[in-house]
Amino acid sequence: MTVPETMNALILKGHGLSGSRSGAAIDTLEPYLDYGKLPVPRPGPGEVLVKVRMASVNPSDLYFIKGEYGQPRVKGAAAGFEGVGQVIAGNGLYAAYLKGKRVAFVGGAAGSGAWAEYIVVSAATCVVIRPAMRDEDAAGHVVNPVTAWTMFDIVEKSGSKSFIFTAANSQLGKLIAGLARDKNCAMIAIIRNESQAAHLEELGAKHVLVQSDPEFGAKLAALCKTDKPRILLDAVANQVAADIFTAMPARARWIIYGKLDTEEPSLREPGQFIFMDKKIEGYWLAQWFKRASIIEKLRTLRAVQNRFISGKWRTEVVATIPLSEALVKLPAALRTGDGKVMLTP
Amino acid sequence: MTVPETMNALILKGHGLSGSRSGAAIDTLEPYLDYGKLPVPRPGPGEVLVKVRMASVNPSDLYFIKGEYGQPRVKGAAAGFEGVGQVIAGNGLYAAYLKGKRVAFVGGAAGSGAWAEYIVVSAATCVVIRPAMRDEDAAGHVVNPVTAWTMFDIVEKSGSKSFIFTAANSQLGKLIAGLARDKNCAMIAIIRNESQAAHLEELGAKHVLVQSDPEFGAKLAALCKTDKPRILLDAVANQVAADIFTAMPARARWIIYGKLDTEEPSLREPGQFIFMDKKIEGYWLAQWFKRASIIEKLRTLRAVQNRFISGKWRTEVVATIPLSEALVKLPAALRTGDGKVMLTP
Repeated sequence: MTVPETMNALILKGHGLSGSRSGAAIDTLEPYLDYGKLPVPRPGPGEVLVKVRMASVNPSDLYFIKGEYGQPRVKGAAAGFEGVGQVIAGNGLYAAYLKGKRVAFVGGAAGSGAWAEYIVVSAATCVVIRPAMRDEDAAGHVVNPVTAWTMFDIVEKSGSKSFIFTAANSQLGKLIAGLARDKNCAMIAIIRNESQAAHLEELGAKHVLVQSDPEFGAKLAALCKTDKPRILLDAVANQVAADIFTAMPARARWIIYGKLDTEEPSLREPGQFIFMDKKIEGYWLAQWFKRASIIEKLRTLRAVQNRFISGKWRTEVVATIPLSEALVKLPAALRTGDGKVMLTP
Repeated sequence: MTVPETMNALILKGHGLSGSRSGAAIDTLEPYLDYGKLPVPRPGPGEVLVKVRMASVNPSDLYFIKGEYGQPRVKGAAAGFEGVGQVIAGNGLYAAYLKGKRVAFVGGAAGSGAWAEYIVVSAATCVVIRPAMRDEDAAGHVVNPVTAWTMFDIVEKSGSKSFIFTAANSQLGKLIAGLARDKNCAMIAIIRNESQAAHLEELGAKHVLVQSDPEFGAKLAALCKTDKPRILLDAVANQVAADIFTAMPARARWIIYGKLDTEEPSLREPGQFIFMDKKIEGYWLAQWFKRASIIEKLRTLRAVQNRFISGKWRTEVVATIPLSEALVKLPAALRTGDGKVMLTP
């Protein structure tokens, strides 16, 4: 396959961190991205060049292009962290093994992004995708599914037979609902509005609480009594989350993995840290990848693929948008909020 | 020794928890305590009767009598958690061994208090005091010194070569300053006003920061860079503490062991839990006693006594007040804030 000199890409307009905190919501991409031409990147030692087949749009991508993610932007580089594609070229033994294979990858922060026709990524981070797996499942194969899997592992290891999950109509929420049901663990799903309630129950959530319900507080208090959830997996980190944490029983852990809301939460009962042994901590997939052993990583990635291939997990795609139309169509597609948006070159 | 039928005591007027949150400050004792007569309590199985020689006044006592501590009050019972006295009678083998000995004790919550001429406590929780130890050191022998010792142990085990300590002019702050210096660990002591700054440095604090200093924020930021403190031991749990935690480097742990301020702290940067692996947790001595092995407890108590006997620790007493005068004199003595107040029958 001949590789051209240039490629189309969605290109970052901003540099570094913006210092602002406007959250994951995005009305227009114009301030952050250009659609244009870039040189096709060249793989360095241990790297491969991947021809992108499909890239996913995660909340972390949106934070990143706005300069509000934990990692600084590189102006003029392609955006996008995650996708699936075919390995075209590369350097090193493992790269040679990967050549021609369909792989899932996570890259992006260092300068080569997934929202482009080609991306350069570290060969070691590529995951070979078995033929039975759809591109739609493979393109969002690492960030959300591995997060769901490893966060549910925290619940299991804690010994708690139930957990609370905020912003549960996210893809992550839907993925973890099935895991919870299969392992006989009661998921208490918190959502903002009712539209996804029945669907979440169908996917495996045992209880679904709607924040706008006037009985929300009373229902939550009752479930804290009967089900004794000791883990709160939270993508919002706002006052509602803080108050849920306060309502939870002794030894509860508030595990923050996202900051969808810009509100600063207040701790109403700091005495609970002392007398009820409560804790607040964070979860970041990048940290998990850093700390987990190779065996643990391989086992997790295999389990995640198997779950998709068996049909137990299925990525719900609401829109597949060509890169060339993303500036116009992506914001509206994201606003539906009920499934994943994919980009294709 | 003949034991009388009745005794003098400071008696709780309130019952259970008050639901209020006014903090440790106390202007007058009248709403909370009566000075009067109670029957001398009788030891049950495994318990001893102790003739109190001296009782200490800790912040936890003040929270407790106001109904703001983690444990409910018993109306009509004597107040006071901690003291030193002589074992007069008891039930069981260990009680027989203790008879006649001078012991330090912690009791109080269940109905028999230390602010009285006699107290009944579990024999197992009594600590035999060696003759070389002063009553002033023995009376406050468990709550503060063991807390200081075990909290400093958290710092040591964390591997951090420095830590931040709020409300550092407390007895706890003074005790931990010496431990820090001896173990070559940099204590960054935070105090509200300058009066105790030189004394804290003399006791072992490497840096003393005064909150009213206009340069407070800049100095703290500089120390966070040079000394990289990863542990915040905090008795205040207010916005200043939350902002100190935000200024601390990655992997910082905010360990709350008291709630001196009634303000609700806001978490300004919840993203730090995710990207910087920060944590909030609590510390409660009662929990430590529950979890530590007997060996660990004995080793700790022996180490604490040795430190007092060797003169490395010395309880700074600002007032010793007879029970009969406590209602009048205790609030004023507490307001000096620069040392311990003791009560004697």
